[in-house]
Amino acid sequence: METLRINHVSKKYGRHLILDDVDFQLAPGKIYGLLGRNGAGKSTLLNIITGRIFPTTGTVTLGDLGSNDQDRVLGEIYLMSEADLYPKKTTIRRMFDLADGAYGDFDYQNAERLLAAFGITSSNQLSDLSTGLQTAAKLTVALNVNASFILLDEPVLGLDANHRDLFYKELIKAYQNKPRTFVLSTHLIDEIQQLVEHVIILNDHQVVENADVQAMLDKAYTVSGPAKLVDQYVAGLRVLGSDQLGKIKTAYVYDQLDNQRVIPDQVKIGHYDLQQLFIHLTNGGSDNE
Amino acid sequence: METLRINHVSKKYGRHLILDDVDFQLAPGKIYGLLGRNGAGKSTLLNIITGRIFPTTGTVTLGDLGSNDQDRVLGEIYLMSEADLYPKKTTIRRMFDLADGAYGDFDYQNAERLLAAFGITSSNQLSDLSTGLQTAAKLTVALNVNASFILLDEPVLGLDANHRDLFYKELIKAYQNKPRTFVLSTHLIDEIQQLVEHVIILNDHQVVENADVQAMLDKAYTVSGPAKLVDQYVAGLRVLGSDQLGKIKTAYVYDQLDNQRVIPDQVKIGHYDLQQLFIHLTNGGSDNE
Repeated sequence: METLRINHVSKKYGRHLILDDVDFQLAPGKIYGLLGRNGAGKSTLLNIITGRIFPTTGTVTLGDLGSNDQDRVLGEIYLMSEADLYPKKTTIRRMFDLADGAYGDFDYQNAERLLAAFGITSSNQLSDLSTGLQTAAKLTVALNVNASFILLDEPVLGLDANHRDLFYKELIKAYQNKPRTFVLSTHLIDEIQQLVEHVIILNDHQVVENADVQAMLDKAYTVSGPAKLVDQYVAGLRVLGSDQLGKIKTAYVYDQLDNQRVIPDQVKIGHYDLQQLFIHLTNGGSDNE
Repeated sequence: METLRINHVSKKYGRHLILDDVDFQLAPGKIYGLLGRNGAGKSTLLNIITGRIFPTTGTVTLGDLGSNDQDRVLGEIYLMSEADLYPKKTTIRRMFDLADGAYGDFDYQNAERLLAAFGITSSNQLSDLSTGLQTAAKLTVALNVNASFILLDEPVLGLDANHRDLFYKELIKAYQNKPRTFVLSTHLIDEIQQLVEHVIILNDHQVVENADVQAMLDKAYTVSGPAKLVDQYVAGLRVLGSDQLGKIKTAYVYDQLDNQRVIPDQVKIGHYDLQQLFIHLTNGGSDNE
């Protein structure tokens, strides 16, 4: 299994820069989160990786394959599609057949089982389903297609809590049965914190973070207490933002804590989660949006 | 301020029963969650409460007002609308004016401030905005309209994590400035657990839970350990479901724990959250959907 490389990809539409020198790698057999605010360029990036649109500059390469092997590269990558890319009156069975035709070895049996768990059958037409069940049908294809890199753009759109829970469990099951690379692009960051190993954050069209989740969380500390003591304690550390309630200030530090610093009695050190970290990293520097 | 009563409301479409004897109250000045799976009947219920559709049987009453005072009742209730109920080319400013005309005393100043925080202006047309920003515009109206009961159907549809965070903070601010009743109908249960005081759960068209959040969480226990010991321990308690991993079983109890029961060394008692509780209460009795 080989590494998928996104090499210095930029994309302009007219004078608008949608992606600005985006450069990262997707290793085989790993679950990634691709996070960004609305409009950050995530969907454009996913469409470039799957060859649906062309970058203005930069390339996407797989292992040693050269740019002449574009078909072999694309044959390893699947992007969960928007419903309106399918012709009207497409049955779910037909979606399975299309995935089987393009990638081979579609797992029909597991797909039928999963559809049933979502409460639909493969004779249903995609366009007859609610938003949530259209998502369920598309996820069923994505979890059973024979590709090494599976990109999921808004995988839980319209799903209720029960179906989201089912999807997360099925994703783990699919990954354990056959380790592949999954990329989840979603706004529900709290819910994927336990699922994803590595996160790439796009902000203002650039990659602003590309790190393992555990390494990120290890640097995410809150420092709370009287404002003056908090300011003294965090001096020189990277502080992403702060809240103040009366005289108590909470600073959101994103840095290695210095073991040499003595923590005053009135100051408390805590943790914050991936979603809060994302919000602070992408709020444009304002402390209190 | 008076209590809004939903009195034994049922709704049939042809032979389909959408709401089955739904009966509960909304007290003044309280934040509620209205939870249910896709298709449970939440939107139908909200439309009945606001007089947009009629129940087959049952009534909605406010305090002592009789059924002749329907206009006064509806004048106290606002439902955040779907975008397509507005005519095309409706500006956000026009939405403010419509809310002011219908309910009076619209808070234009706070609304403009909030719009700016969402990154839009009142001269924007609703239909020109993305799903997330349409939601932002509709939330801005809902948080500044002069009504005693404010119903929010899918209030965070399409919002990224930053805008959801902003909305939750603004909801608390609006509530603190002027306590009113808010009803949040959403699938993101984890995110509202801290916000809502009381929850009503619809399942299969009926109310299956109507309780304060803290009281619900006080009864939500996990019991984990060797399957045999767990089964013995939970005998006679209400168990919503269970997981098994190897020989270790986790039972999801929804009941008062009996202090008399001795907890064996190998058995651990834990908690689970509102979203997990919801999933177990609405999964149709199957342990492993």
